[in-house]
Amino acid sequence: MSYIIKPNPDDPNLTTKIDGIDQDGAQVTHNVVPERPLTIFLNNVEVVTTMTIADQPKWLALGYLWNQRLIDPATRIVRVEYDSELQLVIVRTKLEGNQPGEPGQRLQKRMIRTSGCAEGTIFADMMEQIEQTRLPDGAFLETAWLTSLARSINTTESLYLKAGAIHGAVLAFQDQPMVYMEDVGRHNAIDKLAGWMLTTGTHGHDKILYTTGRLTSEMVIKAVLMEIPIVVSRSGFTAWGVELARTCNLTLIGRARGSRFIALSAWQRI
Amino acid sequence: MSYIIKPNPDDPNLTTKIDGIDQDGAQVTHNVVPERPLTIFLNNVEVVTTMTIADQPKWLALGYLWNQRLIDPATRIVRVEYDSELQLVIVRTKLEGNQPGEPGQRLQKRMIRTSGCAEGTIFADMMEQIEQTRLPDGAFLETAWLTSLARSINTTESLYLKAGAIHGAVLAFQDQPMVYMEDVGRHNAIDKLAGWMLTTGTHGHDKILYTTGRLTSEMVIKAVLMEIPIVVSRSGFTAWGVELARTCNLTLIGRARGSRFIALSAWQRI
Repeated sequence: MSYIIKPNPDDPNLTTKIDGIDQDGAQVTHNVVPERPLTIFLNNVEVVTTMTIADQPKWLALGYLWNQRLIDPATRIVRVEYDSELQLVIVRTKLEGNQPGEPGQRLQKRMIRTSGCAEGTIFADMMEQIEQTRLPDGAFLETAWLTSLARSINTTESLYLKAGAIHGAVLAFQDQPMVYMEDVGRHNAIDKLAGWMLTTGTHGHDKILYTTGRLTSEMVIKAVLMEIPIVVSRSGFTAWGVELARTCNLTLIGRARGSRFIALSAWQRI
Repeated sequence: MSYIIKPNPDDPNLTTKIDGIDQDGAQVTHNVVPERPLTIFLNNVEVVTTMTIADQPKWLALGYLWNQRLIDPATRIVRVEYDSELQLVIVRTKLEGNQPGEPGQRLQKRMIRTSGCAEGTIFADMMEQIEQTRLPDGAFLETAWLTSLARSINTTESLYLKAGAIHGAVLAFQDQPMVYMEDVGRHNAIDKLAGWMLTTGTHGHDKILYTTGRLTSEMVIKAVLMEIPIVVSRSGFTAWGVELARTCNLTLIGRARGSRFIALSAWQRI
């Protein structure tokens, strides 16, 4: 299997050459990755402004809204509009006479319940749902896949290799990377995968999520919402990330370097 | 000079031992860092819930509010309350009959102007102010300080050395680290420095900010608000981070490893 989507480091919009000096005062030219503010609207509600390389604004918006539980695979999405000049994405969903549970109304209700800003309550709502989720046991992982997967990913031409200072997230099937997204934040890279999955109707239950970022609770929450049972990182863990992964029966593998790794939850899948 | 504040990796609240397996299926015990949700209130307004190791909740809250421009060094702070059980911090400021410009009112005004959630507008307001700031030229940096500073920081006992998966931020004077904060997010580590500076009345203009995180626009914005003219990271740059740093006359040094580095803005200070 070859990549369905992979980084395009040759895209002139995704790197800029910048002059500087090195430790000896010599002139150097350095590739850097741009970041642009992107504001995401759900219907007529402004939800968030995030910094992104803006290569996949629509997938980012869809994945962000999904991972915030403001939309889900059952939501009827009418249209996704991207305005590159105003730097905004509008996700329009089917509104049926303001039914309770309709995304716009759900968002508004949450905002009313907090003091204006939805973050606190969204968080509480989401945690309750997450803690009740147990990912099914069917999926499994062979140790040899990890080495092969890491080798494939590390040798793929990427913005990381060209410019650095960027996070990557890969959706894989067994030892084959399928979709590889990069962004200035590890959240955005994963949200873009989620948006792609939502758009293409791809299920997570037989997939592996590979991330360059740390395995924090936020990463675990995203994987659980995306129904991906196995998450691998070359980086480390946080305690709450591990605790949540154990609650949700999610296999969490960290410090994956070469053939070495540590698994701290649900290792019956390995 | 020795540290005024440095990490305390022996604090039993800051690491947990977790059992797992390694690549050969052998049992391992791994140190991981906890992360806890902390909700920050400004007077009666709930501002944000952030994930933190919760070692310095009050400094984190003050620094966050400062770096969001909801308070500043001129704000009269009456009291900062931390409730470790409810996991919240309340920053109480002097309210003078709802004067315009009073923090709570400023926050409310912003929220009204957006569709409930302040993020977008706070962002626009802040950018306008940041882009008008030019840090004065007085400060300077000797190349040799960097090597010595990095060596001091890297050999300091820390949660990073004990458990990994954590970011660090250090406020330094010349080649001497003064205050070293760690947290699960690079933002929080810097916000804690900011909170400490605010509380102790420490000025940034003759200091160096050392961070393990990437030099994004958000990092530059924080440094500018803290009036620190020189920012050093062992990690890389983003284009907008560099652009903002140039606009604000902030010296941005990245990829600092051993005696090597790259400077992409305001290198007249070196």
